[in-house]
Amino acid sequence: MINITLPDGAVRQYEPGVSALDIAKSISEGLARKVLSAKVNGEVIDATRPITQDSTLQLLTWNDQEGKSTLWHSSAHLMAEALEALFPGVKLGIGPAIESGGFYYDIDLGDRQIGEEDLRKLEAKMNELAKQNNSYVRKDVSKADALTYFTDKQDQYKLELINDLQDGTITFYTQGGFTDLCRGPHIPNTGFIKAIKLTNIAGAYWRGNEKNKMLTRIYGITFPTQKELDEHLLLLEEAKKRDHRKLGKELELFTFSEKVGLGLPLWLPKGAMLRERLQQFLQRAQIESGYLPVVTPHIGSKQLYVTSGHYEKYGKDSFQPISTPEEGEEFLLKPMNCPHHCEIYKASPKSYKDLPVRLAEFGTVYRYEQHGELHGLTRVRGFTQDDAHLFCRPDQVKEEFIKVIDLVLYVFKSLNFTDYTAQISLRDKEDRSKYIGSDENWNLAEQAIIESAKEKGLPTVVEYGEAAFYGPKLDFMVKDALGRKWQLGTIQVDYNLPERFELEYIGADNAKHRPVMIHRAPFGSLERFIAVLIEHVAGKFPLWLAPTQVKILPISDKSQAYAEKVAELLKNSEIRAEIDDRSEKIGKKIREAELAKIPYMLVLGEKEATDNLVAVRRQAKGDLGTMEIKNFIDMVTDEVINRKPFE
Amino acid sequence: MINITLPDGAVRQYEPGVSALDIAKSISEGLARKVLSAKVNGEVIDATRPITQDSTLQLLTWNDQEGKSTLWHSSAHLMAEALEALFPGVKLGIGPAIESGGFYYDIDLGDRQIGEEDLRKLEAKMNELAKQNNSYVRKDVSKADALTYFTDKQDQYKLELINDLQDGTITFYTQGGFTDLCRGPHIPNTGFIKAIKLTNIAGAYWRGNEKNKMLTRIYGITFPTQKELDEHLLLLEEAKKRDHRKLGKELELFTFSEKVGLGLPLWLPKGAMLRERLQQFLQRAQIESGYLPVVTPHIGSKQLYVTSGHYEKYGKDSFQPISTPEEGEEFLLKPMNCPHHCEIYKASPKSYKDLPVRLAEFGTVYRYEQHGELHGLTRVRGFTQDDAHLFCRPDQVKEEFIKVIDLVLYVFKSLNFTDYTAQISLRDKEDRSKYIGSDENWNLAEQAIIESAKEKGLPTVVEYGEAAFYGPKLDFMVKDALGRKWQLGTIQVDYNLPERFELEYIGADNAKHRPVMIHRAPFGSLERFIAVLIEHVAGKFPLWLAPTQVKILPISDKSQAYAEKVAELLKNSEIRAEIDDRSEKIGKKIREAELAKIPYMLVLGEKEATDNLVAVRRQAKGDLGTMEIKNFIDMVTDEVINRKPFE
Repeated sequence: MINITLPDGAVRQYEPGVSALDIAKSISEGLARKVLSAKVNGEVIDATRPITQDSTLQLLTWNDQEGKSTLWHSSAHLMAEALEALFPGVKLGIGPAIESGGFYYDIDLGDRQIGEEDLRKLEAKMNELAKQNNSYVRKDVSKADALTYFTDKQDQYKLELINDLQDGTITFYTQGGFTDLCRGPHIPNTGFIKAIKLTNIAGAYWRGNEKNKMLTRIYGITFPTQKELDEHLLLLEEAKKRDHRKLGKELELFTFSEKVGLGLPLWLPKGAMLRERLQQFLQRAQIESGYLPVVTPHIGSKQLYVTSGHYEKYGKDSFQPISTPEEGEEFLLKPMNCPHHCEIYKASPKSYKDLPVRLAEFGTVYRYEQHGELHGLTRVRGFTQDDAHLFCRPDQVKEEFIKVIDLVLYVFKSLNFTDYTAQISLRDKEDRSKYIGSDENWNLAEQAIIESAKEKGLPTVVEYGEAAFYGPKLDFMVKDALGRKWQLGTIQVDYNLPERFELEYIGADNAKHRPVMIHRAPFGSLERFIAVLIEHVAGKFPLWLAPTQVKILPISDKSQAYAEKVAELLKNSEIRAEIDDRSEKIGKKIREAELAKIPYMLVLGEKEATDNLVAVRRQAKGDLGTMEIKNFIDMVTDEVINRKPFE
Repeated sequence: MINITLPDGAVRQYEPGVSALDIAKSISEGLARKVLSAKVNGEVIDATRPITQDSTLQLLTWNDQEGKSTLWHSSAHLMAEALEALFPGVKLGIGPAIESGGFYYDIDLGDRQIGEEDLRKLEAKMNELAKQNNSYVRKDVSKADALTYFTDKQDQYKLELINDLQDGTITFYTQGGFTDLCRGPHIPNTGFIKAIKLTNIAGAYWRGNEKNKMLTRIYGITFPTQKELDEHLLLLEEAKKRDHRKLGKELELFTFSEKVGLGLPLWLPKGAMLRERLQQFLQRAQIESGYLPVVTPHIGSKQLYVTSGHYEKYGKDSFQPISTPEEGEEFLLKPMNCPHHCEIYKASPKSYKDLPVRLAEFGTVYRYEQHGELHGLTRVRGFTQDDAHLFCRPDQVKEEFIKVIDLVLYVFKSLNFTDYTAQISLRDKEDRSKYIGSDENWNLAEQAIIESAKEKGLPTVVEYGEAAFYGPKLDFMVKDALGRKWQLGTIQVDYNLPERFELEYIGADNAKHRPVMIHRAPFGSLERFIAVLIEHVAGKFPLWLAPTQVKILPISDKSQAYAEKVAELLKNSEIRAEIDDRSEKIGKKIREAELAKIPYMLVLGEKEATDNLVAVRRQAKGDLGTMEIKNFIDMVTDEVINRKPFE
């Protein structure tokens, strides 16, 4: 008998050769129906594979990312089977699951074009095949046999893949009449795929190389129930409505101009106001926490980035150096603020008593992204990081880490991001040779990060081997209102730059020491954060951030003077108000203010003017009744000061 | 008899051939002793030259820039005379007056080196020659005679100059035993030069061309009285003390790093704070005046600057284009914000009712300057303009101009620049073909500027022919505390960019029209303005700008807790305070706070802690006595709100 240890620590005994699926069945039939794959001793495998020795076991279902991936990967195989049925002779490239959801298959249809209609036919075929409950059967094959199989099928893509395989083990997976070259794992049988949606057709170069043939990429997503597909489609629709590119345009927040350049946002007045509010909010919190704002240029000599190592790493894939009319000088657009801050640290000698030194800058950096990679505000070529670099002693890392976590949580709370986890990236447990910095310092920092997260009660995932070569880090993963995950807020320990820039402080022992550097950015960048925020709140910014907080709507010219008086009073209370003084019907004015998602509207007619009152409307909620101007101002001010969310 | 019209309008009659000096004598002997040259019918000539026809006359003295220039130019001749006496065989290049004060002569001493000691000898010789009261005598000579004279003297530099002369008239000036090729004008005789200081020896390529021989340049300055020289030397000493490069370092405002690059300032925390205060101050005033802040990237595609014309104008002399890994894209560091703002204007259609649109940005721009041209913060390669572009209808130019003048004056007043003039640059009266834009619009704008300045009561100088080809402008010339003039604040009308970017608005007539663009920057740039401000206030910033407003000085560790309590109270009142908690004697702490020009110091001992009081010191003034914390906060707050100057 072998011992199987379950995640809750319970140990059960089974015959050698038992499968995860068997074990699930031994627990409950209901559970077995949900098992998509299994993690055995840390490796994800088919739930049907025999387990032959004492093992730890985690059953993977739709609730696990790996479970989802297994279903989607198997769905790609199912789609391939359907493709072969509908388009005999189709050549298959690769068909993986996608981390953000779903799967694709790159295929070569020869001269044949396919469209929407074909997708619907494919879906029908896939549904038909899924219902056959065909098992996914794994088989080890020799390289020779593998080559023979795909030579017979005349599939040059698979042949190329097999020829490139280095190790000896090659596996095939077969379901129904379809066999694919694949490492697995897969779901037990096609019956687990209950709902199918093929979403998109695109072009993709074979192996991502533009010198190769352009293949057809078909995207799809599948679910274990129809209900989940329906929810997903609803979510997609909602996401479309909230798309920050669409709302950015409608709310006049930002624009792009081909003449200025792709991926270089121009912030319109309302967007600039929103940016400024966020920046001021964080700046204030940072100063409160002992940060020192600095300002540095947007270029640096090439030598600066040779010193920092950024040139070697990014040089040829990024914006190229700027030469000058005089010879011997070359500059680079800054891709990072850290080298500049290292030079500021070096501008005066430091003692251990001066540390930590926390240099902060809303620093705009430029990084080249290819045309095809650009996307609204989330992938741009110029963006402003809410950057800061904390130079501290090794014994201060934990205290600084806790303070940064506090700051990040303050930011999330103020912006109503309530659902987040912390991902801690540590060294590889086996190979520690690839990291810079002493073992002692790494241990200190890793412990500091783990303990900080624990003390702050953060829901935490620890990933070994995910640390950068220069230090461990903590990333915040935040769920937005649609349940989508975003990586916001990174805290990164760095032993590398202090070394490269030869940063020093004089210790209590009167000897020279290297400070530790911590990079951190609660927003990440203003651009990306605002994109996420727009989609999180669907453009309905909390009042303290709303570019226009109040729209004053005089019913007719007769109320114009009173409207101006009210506007003046609001301005004096630092409330951002605008008058809509067009000669339009009041209904139209209200509708347009609603569409512009202005939080408050004041409808002012002759009666309001006479009584010195304002008739208040709240966006999406409607009439709040008539009140005294002072009361309205108090209400608004209270909402702003307490940073209340929109509703 | 001829009629001589004096500046006050009085007309006097004299014999033809009378000189300005004769006329001065006819008014008063005292006046005659001060006349250095004269402006006759707008042309500056020797005060001794005969006037033969009806003329307007302005006697030029030390109070006029042209009078000063005449004395300095004549002093260069005097120095040349002394040089020939002390260094026989010296060859002479050119020896002009310098606009910013003094004169130089470029000379060729063969292999001979000269030093400080030689300057003192030269000064003595010049004083000796000056006392001879030798007249400066003008003489017309033929080109042939001129060449013969300098061939005899073997002076190849003068020969080269004569050979290059185009027109027929060549004049020599002789004083004592020295004759020079010169257009004049000169002072009546050497006796007017009463005080002489030779200041500096430098190298200079003949005719500024590095392919030519390096000559020796000797700088000097002279005065009509010893008292004025003494004052000048004091001023130089004071200017040295106030040098923003020196104070910038001492007050830890900014630094430069060779690795980041020459001419690229790094703003240290205290400097960044100062910058931020200035920026917030202007931003607030601008929003109050209806400006809309925007944010644009620091690069733009080359095509943007080809459209704007900046590429053609600055392209090859500035930072070179940035290429990218993908082909076909080129970017430039932005030398100006206006093209970006034009693209923002174009982002949505505009009606005549939408104008004026006032787009504002603290936009950092980059312009290449040669190594040798760089100087502290006044000549840099990257700087932040307090830029704004007003897009308005032609009929709005005057109203907008007045508003901008108001804003600039508000800035000057808040920063205690009380002495300024406005220089208005208009079209050339004769040649109007070289200007872009309709005659009608130019007339409108020129009138608008002149009237605006008049209505605002600005002391004004009008310069014809000084307008840019694309529009008239108004520059503010500001005198600092040492009486030095700085050009701060420009308001520039522009008909060119709206044309090049094809900007439009729909008029009341439903037809398309071109808006007028006004560029304006009250500070000019934050870098240059802060440099001027540092020197104007000698580093003693008004309290509202001071990076650290209060230094808290606990007398010993025993007062540390109380110091922290006071610091907290000040922080809550938004007062920028720091504790000096080093274990140093209180005397040393006070001395260092004084040197750091911190406006207020709070000396806290056990007695203050017990009584809950603070002992207040004012920088450079000393003890202000003991007071309650609340009273101190009120005093400070009042000083900040009212933006009081340092003293």
